[in-house]
Amino acid sequence: MKEFHVIIVGGGPGGYVAAIRLMQYGINVAVIEKERLGGVCLNHGCIPTKSLVKVADLFSEIRESENFGINLKDPVVDYEKVWERKNNIVEKLVSGIEFIFKKKSIPVINEEVIKIEKADNGYKICSRSSEYQARFVILATGSSPKELPFIKFDGNRIFSSRDILKMQQLPQSLVVIGGGVIGCEFASIYSRLGVKVEIVEFLPKLVFNEDEEISRRLAMALKKSGIKLHLNTAVENYEDKNGKIILKLSNGKQIETEKVLVSVGRQPAMELEFINCDLIMENGFIKISDDFRTNLNNVFSIGDVTGKLMLAHTASKQGLIVADIIDNELNGKDHKIFKLEYENIPRGTFTEPEIGSVGLTEKQAKEKYEDILIGKFPFSANGKALGLGNSFGFVKVVADAKTKKLIGLHIIGPLATELIAQGSILIGKETEIEDVEKIVFAHPTLSEAIMEAIEDLENKAIHKV
Amino acid sequence: MKEFHVIIVGGGPGGYVAAIRLMQYGINVAVIEKERLGGVCLNHGCIPTKSLVKVADLFSEIRESENFGINLKDPVVDYEKVWERKNNIVEKLVSGIEFIFKKKSIPVINEEVIKIEKADNGYKICSRSSEYQARFVILATGSSPKELPFIKFDGNRIFSSRDILKMQQLPQSLVVIGGGVIGCEFASIYSRLGVKVEIVEFLPKLVFNEDEEISRRLAMALKKSGIKLHLNTAVENYEDKNGKIILKLSNGKQIETEKVLVSVGRQPAMELEFINCDLIMENGFIKISDDFRTNLNNVFSIGDVTGKLMLAHTASKQGLIVADIIDNELNGKDHKIFKLEYENIPRGTFTEPEIGSVGLTEKQAKEKYEDILIGKFPFSANGKALGLGNSFGFVKVVADAKTKKLIGLHIIGPLATELIAQGSILIGKETEIEDVEKIVFAHPTLSEAIMEAIEDLENKAIHKV
Repeated sequence: MKEFHVIIVGGGPGGYVAAIRLMQYGINVAVIEKERLGGVCLNHGCIPTKSLVKVADLFSEIRESENFGINLKDPVVDYEKVWERKNNIVEKLVSGIEFIFKKKSIPVINEEVIKIEKADNGYKICSRSSEYQARFVILATGSSPKELPFIKFDGNRIFSSRDILKMQQLPQSLVVIGGGVIGCEFASIYSRLGVKVEIVEFLPKLVFNEDEEISRRLAMALKKSGIKLHLNTAVENYEDKNGKIILKLSNGKQIETEKVLVSVGRQPAMELEFINCDLIMENGFIKISDDFRTNLNNVFSIGDVTGKLMLAHTASKQGLIVADIIDNELNGKDHKIFKLEYENIPRGTFTEPEIGSVGLTEKQAKEKYEDILIGKFPFSANGKALGLGNSFGFVKVVADAKTKKLIGLHIIGPLATELIAQGSILIGKETEIEDVEKIVFAHPTLSEAIMEAIEDLENKAIHKV
Repeated sequence: MKEFHVIIVGGGPGGYVAAIRLMQYGINVAVIEKERLGGVCLNHGCIPTKSLVKVADLFSEIRESENFGINLKDPVVDYEKVWERKNNIVEKLVSGIEFIFKKKSIPVINEEVIKIEKADNGYKICSRSSEYQARFVILATGSSPKELPFIKFDGNRIFSSRDILKMQQLPQSLVVIGGGVIGCEFASIYSRLGVKVEIVEFLPKLVFNEDEEISRRLAMALKKSGIKLHLNTAVENYEDKNGKIILKLSNGKQIETEKVLVSVGRQPAMELEFINCDLIMENGFIKISDDFRTNLNNVFSIGDVTGKLMLAHTASKQGLIVADIIDNELNGKDHKIFKLEYENIPRGTFTEPEIGSVGLTEKQAKEKYEDILIGKFPFSANGKALGLGNSFGFVKVVADAKTKKLIGLHIIGPLATELIAQGSILIGKETEIEDVEKIVFAHPTLSEAIMEAIEDLENKAIHKV
């Protein structure tokens, strides 16, 4: 029976990242992954969708190229090629990670773990064919798309967010059930590639976790781009009629569509049996402490299966911290272990316009702080945004009125998903308004809009009327 | 004679920004500007060039759109329209600032100051037609393109960086004399719009102030894009032959071209007469102290005319600090006055690939610190860059080995001019390597390459082989 210091169950962005860091620490680690390294994120999520987003972005601009002084004829999307390009990018990245594992001699065991058994000196990890022994275990088994009971995924016309990426031709029409981040991203992609798209959302707003104003602005933009929104509306049933799907909505209306994407959230992927020990769960997720420990000694858990902010970079960061903890315990190192503040993890929505946010929304801040300040700056007053021909949206910043600390940054508009890193740094470094005065922002950049939104907290934005 | 608390001579990004801030402080300020508000930056520099950069970026992608799965026919640049679009953007921004001045009742005096006279209670500022009185003066007169003695600007075939923006048709060929930031930007723009471009640079490297590696990589990219580089080469003379210009180079070669851009630096724009007082200059620039005071009491100077890092955002920041100083003195306020660290001002080069840099280069750091750390991360290993189809370049970070403080960030590659703001914040906030561990970067973003370059300082980048 092969023995390791650490076995990681699941090779997604939590597991594979933790494995590389543990290897960097000289720790004997293996990853057991039933599919390919990279998990949903690289294989069926973030990376393939962002490859599609790029094409949607470019095609949108091409259709408006006359406004930029560029003439051209007959622009048309060859979706099969778009689809292949996406696959090539995924292949390149995944094989890149496989190469790193090979080069650094980290074993990847391509099996499915079905059982974990408490043993004398750690745990026995069992697949159908083999058993492995480890002192530490990291459970990083991820999540999978939730299904609606009355409209099951069929991989052909009723898609999960994973299956829709296998679709090789653009449909005429698509209904997206669920207007969260994933639903809105796919809606924005396919709409811009020429598909007639409608979104049905049970709640009164899109991208539920975002600041109210941001969410409203996104709805406005998606509507303007031709996507039909049905908010406050549930899908109650569907029927199949002459090869079309008829969705019956809670408001009595019906929508006819060729394809359906159901994106109503994700559920933990956890089907292990535990022997001689019991893993405590909470609402279906693995229950963890602030330092990612499960109730079982030396068993950690990270990523979507823990049900915290379900994002790839949450999992990666959790994995890196766990690697530090294990290095401290195994090798007597003294890595500082800091508490991961989930609210300070940035969130990106790759719609057009993009959304980037970090920290508290205005509403959350009002609940938590006695008095807050709000600063706002529109991209329409930013020179770079005008140059880019993309000046829809704004930056909104939230500060604690008492300490003047920045506690939230919310951006909707050009490059919001990149600009938000500035918010992560500012909030992570506990920055006060005055500190920002010392920082110079390059001109002409979109980043200046962040500076001006912060200045606006004290009504000192220069370019705001 | 009209009296003001403060008169600002020059309405560029130094002067107009200072004026708005002074008005926000309730200070009676006027700007005297002979042209339109916004200065070179808005009218003849940053903003019009970035409008052109956008078109060059888009046209480059359009020409490669097949790689993205988009088919189209006969893409062609209608430069007259590109030129008009640029003018419209400039007009929109400049009139926007004029509107702010009107709305906030800040007088803009559209005259040329020719004389400043020491008076009893301040200074008398004189144009040809009028006189104004002020207690404080801010000299923000800017700079203009340097000329070469043997090849004078003619606004028709031999352009300054200002005049080339008036060119309404694309030439067949363009030689850029001077491979600094401005020269490289124009070379990159026009080359991508289809003009045959060559750069002649006296020094052995392009963008002289940038890190060696970055500079080399830019040269590589420009060459690959079809721009011919003549480094270590001077232009010695030229002749006119059948409507073409023949440039004679120091290496004995000759280049024939339709148009020439001379971009060999900028010189202070300062032609004022001082009465009853003498303004001390240094190498043609106005000599200032750390707090932007000239030798004359209550006369400040900011921007290009002071010969510091000659960038719009340097001028603006200087102007904002001067506004704080004046508010302290006039109104007894206690704004904290911090020392502007010029090396921590970010620099952007809007070529393809873009460059963004802040802090010390590797070479500068080696001179200043005993021992330094270098971290690097290539965009070719970044998932978002692959999705964008733009993975040329890298992030390079410099840290002090002793204190582990970040002291330089250099980026060449996609969105470098926006990403660099993260460097400004990190360095401005005196961040140590370990601090960055607490900050989460969103996936999938280019910003992750910054995180990995920082991790690489201690050989801990996850995605580096």
